[in-house]
Amino acid sequence: MEPLFNRIALIGIGLIGSSIARDVRKLGLAQEIVISTRSAATLAQAEALKLGDRYTTSAASAADGADLIIVSVPVGASESVAVQIAPALKPGAIITDVGSTKASVIAQMAPHMPQDVHFIPGHPLAGTEKSGPEAGFSGLFKGRWCIFTPLPDTNAEALAKLRQFWEALGSKVDEMDPQHHDKVLAIVSHLPHIIAYNIVGTADDLETVTESEVIKYSASGFRDFTRLAASDPTMWRDVCLHNKDAILEMLARFSEDLASLQRAIRWGEGDKLFELFTRTRTIRRSIVEAGQDVDVPDFGRHALDDKR
Amino acid sequence: MEPLFNRIALIGIGLIGSSIARDVRKLGLAQEIVISTRSAATLAQAEALKLGDRYTTSAASAADGADLIIVSVPVGASESVAVQIAPALKPGAIITDVGSTKASVIAQMAPHMPQDVHFIPGHPLAGTEKSGPEAGFSGLFKGRWCIFTPLPDTNAEALAKLRQFWEALGSKVDEMDPQHHDKVLAIVSHLPHIIAYNIVGTADDLETVTESEVIKYSASGFRDFTRLAASDPTMWRDVCLHNKDAILEMLARFSEDLASLQRAIRWGEGDKLFELFTRTRTIRRSIVEAGQDVDVPDFGRHALDDKR
Repeated sequence: MEPLFNRIALIGIGLIGSSIARDVRKLGLAQEIVISTRSAATLAQAEALKLGDRYTTSAASAADGADLIIVSVPVGASESVAVQIAPALKPGAIITDVGSTKASVIAQMAPHMPQDVHFIPGHPLAGTEKSGPEAGFSGLFKGRWCIFTPLPDTNAEALAKLRQFWEALGSKVDEMDPQHHDKVLAIVSHLPHIIAYNIVGTADDLETVTESEVIKYSASGFRDFTRLAASDPTMWRDVCLHNKDAILEMLARFSEDLASLQRAIRWGEGDKLFELFTRTRTIRRSIVEAGQDVDVPDFGRHALDDKR
Repeated sequence: MEPLFNRIALIGIGLIGSSIARDVRKLGLAQEIVISTRSAATLAQAEALKLGDRYTTSAASAADGADLIIVSVPVGASESVAVQIAPALKPGAIITDVGSTKASVIAQMAPHMPQDVHFIPGHPLAGTEKSGPEAGFSGLFKGRWCIFTPLPDTNAEALAKLRQFWEALGSKVDEMDPQHHDKVLAIVSHLPHIIAYNIVGTADDLETVTESEVIKYSASGFRDFTRLAASDPTMWRDVCLHNKDAILEMLARFSEDLASLQRAIRWGEGDKLFELFTRTRTIRRSIVEAGQDVDVPDFGRHALDDKR
């Protein structure tokens, strides 16, 4: 593929950043990949994995002269990165991010961006429960959505170019306003993670059932939650702190519904339970039909289970 | 393998019953398999799948003369099955079940059992979100736990024989008292299913985010819950109604913890969030190390995802 950019700077080289690096290299999307991360140890890992052409712990020197800068850090670090890179940005550069919350990232970064660059907030809906440079892989974004939440005055050409970049990685691109993005993600991603963290915490705290029993018998349902609850703690702490309002709104709805379900169990309202349990089955079917999950029982785990 | 039993009767031929039938046939564990289910349509499906040697809608005539009777029905139907089969049971027969709640099944069935048979309540911790005879498969129980909750006066020889049966199917057998079983299952299985049903219901009810958005972006976390929430509604209604006390206890603990987590989010207590999110990650690791889940990111779905 013709390189889309001369120089791409990746600020942050965890699961997402390192997956981008692998795809950019594989697809030849840039002449040069510059990698920056605060931690010298992580940078050394990235270098050992040969993820880029140049490596630096300075975000500013990575951003200096880059045509596309992709910020892939926990959302709480967005402002600090913006402050560091702003003076080094070259006119016409495209700056994007991959953060899971968008209103907060815009509030943190936009005020620091020079007039002559294109800041386009973005969010690839992709990832796994693993983290760090070695957890990334080429193809992570294939078939996944990437949501842009462009500011009102965004340059159309820059937007088209960034879209072309994500489409080259195999993503489907959507646009949304940042507030709506944050509400959508609160229900499809943030609430599920918080609930998963919570139930795993509850199980860990019980006195009547031991932790080893929970682990031993986890295949009967519990283990499904542990995957999300194994996600990167720093990333998820920041998501909770930076999408607070939407998350609290969804949590309130969830708790209200749970109280009602609890009451139905207490009073033996079988019909009400049956109605809910039937309705939710339909949604699973729609997700599989929409190609958003695999159409095999147990996420296809049985084949792998057999190898134990 | 030498047949362990002359005649095995399977009462109920859904996911579990039909998986047992396939294994019994494949492993040659019985001379004859008799299949019974209330619904003529389901029975016809079982026959079309050639799951047994004889088929009947009468539980009594299936049980008549059988050496091992396995009851695989929603737990709420246990008493009705016990009443039907009791008069037909042959002396020395072993009667077991596969129900997800044990105290209730014992209360429903034990009083109807004749003195000269061996009633051994059991629970294989295996299954998928699919249901019905066509959803079963040979190997479902391989490497999975099967928990017996024997009554105090259980015949040791009958117990050993039933253990031999489940071990032949590849299961590991544990024994537990029924009350403890119900508490353990409430946390490792019942609560996860209820929470999954609830969150999928909440998402379905929102006004600010459409159902099609929830489906479209579900891969960012939500889809993990939809698998459990697609489980058989009748089975799960009955579980909720028949393990009420343990479930309400676990729900109370979960809600208490969630309220505390919600408060930490509201007040921006990042350290508290980080501590929980780190602790839960360790539990995932223990589950993978215990061989209770696959050691690949995203349940190994990425390989299948690519085929979309």
